Amino acid sequence: METKIQLKESDMPRQWYNLAADLPNPPLPPLGPDGKPISPDMLAPVFPMNLIEQEVSTERWINIPEEILGLLYRWRPTPLKRAVNLEKHLGTPAKIYFKDESVSPPGSHKPNTAIPQAWYNKQFGIKRLTTETGAGQWGSALAFACKMVGLECKVFMVRISFDQKPFRKLMMATWGANCVASPSNETNAGRTILKEMPDTPGSLGIAISEAIEQAVTDKSGKTRYSLGSVLNHVMLHQTIIGLEAKKQLKIAGEKTPDVVIGCAGGGSNFAGLSFPFVADKIAGADIEIIPVEPKSCPTMTKGPFAYDFGDTACTTPLMAMYTLGHAFIPPPIHAGGLRYHGMSPLVCQTIVEGLMTPRAYHQLKCYEAAITFASTEGMICAPETSHAIAATIDEAIKAKEEGKEKIILFNYSGHGLMDLTGYDAYLSGKLSDYSLPDDDIKKYTEPLKQFPPAEKHKTGKW
Amino acid sequence: METKIQLKESDMPRQWYNLAADLPNPPLPPLGPDGKPISPDMLAPVFPMNLIEQEVSTERWINIPEEILGLLYRWRPTPLKRAVNLEKHLGTPAKIYFKDESVSPPGSHKPNTAIPQAWYNKQFGIKRLTTETGAGQWGSALAFACKMVGLECKVFMVRISFDQKPFRKLMMATWGANCVASPSNETNAGRTILKEMPDTPGSLGIAISEAIEQAVTDKSGKTRYSLGSVLNHVMLHQTIIGLEAKKQLKIAGEKTPDVVIGCAGGGSNFAGLSFPFVADKIAGADIEIIPVEPKSCPTMTKGPFAYDFGDTACTTPLMAMYTLGHAFIPPPIHAGGLRYHGMSPLVCQTIVEGLMTPRAYHQLKCYEAAITFASTEGMICAPETSHAIAATIDEAIKAKEEGKEKIILFNYSGHGLMDLTGYDAYLSGKLSDYSLPDDDIKKYTEPLKQFPPAEKHKTGKW
Repeated sequence: METKIQLKESDMPRQWYNLAADLPNPPLPPLGPDGKPISPDMLAPVFPMNLIEQEVSTERWINIPEEILGLLYRWRPTPLKRAVNLEKHLGTPAKIYFKDESVSPPGSHKPNTAIPQAWYNKQFGIKRLTTETGAGQWGSALAFACKMVGLECKVFMVRISFDQKPFRKLMMATWGANCVASPSNETNAGRTILKEMPDTPGSLGIAISEAIEQAVTDKSGKTRYSLGSVLNHVMLHQTIIGLEAKKQLKIAGEKTPDVVIGCAGGGSNFAGLSFPFVADKIAGADIEIIPVEPKSCPTMTKGPFAYDFGDTACTTPLMAMYTLGHAFIPPPIHAGGLRYHGMSPLVCQTIVEGLMTPRAYHQLKCYEAAITFASTEGMICAPETSHAIAATIDEAIKAKEEGKEKIILFNYSGHGLMDLTGYDAYLSGKLSDYSLPDDDIKKYTEPLKQFPPAEKHKTGKW
Repeated sequence: METKIQLKESDMPRQWYNLAADLPNPPLPPLGPDGKPISPDMLAPVFPMNLIEQEVSTERWINIPEEILGLLYRWRPTPLKRAVNLEKHLGTPAKIYFKDESVSPPGSHKPNTAIPQAWYNKQFGIKRLTTETGAGQWGSALAFACKMVGLECKVFMVRISFDQKPFRKLMMATWGANCVASPSNETNAGRTILKEMPDTPGSLGIAISEAIEQAVTDKSGKTRYSLGSVLNHVMLHQTIIGLEAKKQLKIAGEKTPDVVIGCAGGGSNFAGLSFPFVADKIAGADIEIIPVEPKSCPTMTKGPFAYDFGDTACTTPLMAMYTLGHAFIPPPIHAGGLRYHGMSPLVCQTIVEGLMTPRAYHQLKCYEAAITFASTEGMICAPETSHAIAATIDEAIKAKEEGKEKIILFNYSGHGLMDLTGYDAYLSGKLSDYSLPDDDIKKYTEPLKQFPPAEKHKTGKW
């Protein structure tokens, strides 16, 4: 039995899968400042029109251009691996498979969308992309993609991460990107904040504002902004993960998985693996699909489904999603990629439909799972990924208790080699758990009542 | 055309290749303190007998136990990749292939020997391994292997690296190893040094002395020492790289490569790729085989072939090799893995036979090559690996000038994600080149004349 199932490049999917085509009820539209659905044109100063078309598309399959495939070949297709040593350790009858997205040069699933975004921008005549990054996963993925495609790249990195996590910044520099600490002196948004709070550690919200401002104020019209999660076209590009996994499970002789698991911050790695299986579930397959989030930032498990801004600076359209409120600032856990107040509207509508069952975990349990994985499979995962592993272990133990030979599939979204300080904090007993109090959730979500209500369109047959 | 050639686990080599069986003249024997060849028994306090048997074996093929194969499956077989983007960038008619050894959990080729060494020790009833590490590549590989096999692991890490490179130490901790700064208070060797020089930055020589002392003084007899390069059994375990590469080139429809390249510090990644091709060359194939070293530590290109100690503390047997003298301390270049005064005796005998043509490069040229590789193939290599890439680029340009469609194969021995400070130093113009002056070489190698002369057994038909 092979423990790694490899596809050939020639077997890679030639189309992305668009879940919007199959959801019983489509996601609610984003709303503009006037409370009315925005038109594609209104996004044109921020994104190129070819990506906006993907954003609003309801076509089921969207062709992947040959040139993008050529760029993805640098690391795709990624291996599907069977965690035989973890299975043995747990004594479970379940078969545990994981899609190893850590093999990309930046070390995560992020380049799956960074590459197409850079390519479509270049096709549209754009010369330069701006973006924000927190811990640096997304910034380094876009830096990589821009270098491969031939675009300039400007990254606004939250100052506290810029200072504390120099390695990600150095990766970006190696790929020729210009990474600055945010708030910076380069934008009005940055200068205003610096004047008020010269010692601010920065925030993702501020960094987004700076990146968008620099994109829309470039008079040449050759600069656009790029976002690494949340949006529909990002979820679309990531579906290559699940489409590959399906082919690989078939090669392994397995049936449709019983359980599909991914960690979810903005939702992209989880959607990438799970959306092709959501299609199977809509068609009648019996699959439990589990997005996992931290208890300290329990968007899907505790937040209301409401219209809210995507950023703290209130510059984006209003999106219908589970949210803890745009003003909520998650505690500084090590899983930086899961610190987001909202969630992909496509993922949220899928939850509303009852097609997914979100779950939240404490970080100590997640680090324990990460150490178990490193001790059995030998791989050191990203702190975000540890949430998927914790849920996988729980499901494998449940399968053991039930005596069922379940197929469990999870997304190994990234490695933890740039995040070892989190392991250090855990191993030296410096970490603790934190549950977001219900009063806090109420405080931050109460103001959302000023926005139009987000009706829960739910078919409810699952 | 596929740019990545994958083997199945079932296609992995089932035997290691022992070059000692085919070399026209065998390497000279290691000598004891009395100047006479040492017997296997004399190594028994340091290594387990099953590894000593491999060390002295002249069998051509040595079976890989099934259990070791099972452990190697965690990341092997590794992909053979074609650097199509680098080829295009250089405009060369050459086809450039590289074996990607960076996909192992510790990020380099080192676990190829760490896993078998840990397994053979466990078979022999050993409970605990000790070793030394400089920058941390080897220490983290042995920590990983011991965790996978079920042994305790103790690593003495050179103090300056321990303080300056915390990430490698955290990897070791994640795999449960005990890593201490050397010199430590745990050994006589360490205490003596600390008393004389309390502020010493440490050295590999001191760390080796501490690791060996702790192994041989354990009264339970259950501790042994492990070395990550130089020795014959280490080269043997690494040959899985070249054996896989041969099968993969065949799948790709290629003939025997024209040029085989690897960086060489102690010699193990280079030997691993090249030895199976040395066998072809002995059998008549026309292959240029190039070990690449730094000009600041030019062991093979400037050192005499002489008997010398393997460590600065003079605790090992005398080995016949190219050497800059055991007292020579290489300058602190970023390619820490290439800072070794000596070289694998098996590699050295192969050079003596004229079967290899060593080459030395300056570090600025190597970093330039690393940036070119990151900008085309997207991968950020280890500073050591950049030496192989620099030579590969030179060979590809030469092929262009000659108008020949050569097959060039090099070993991508490791990724550079833990070494980004070196890139930072290069990109910010803080690095410079350094050639070791001939007078220095003379000074450090003059004392070797006190040892028995190392006769150059050379057939010379290549």
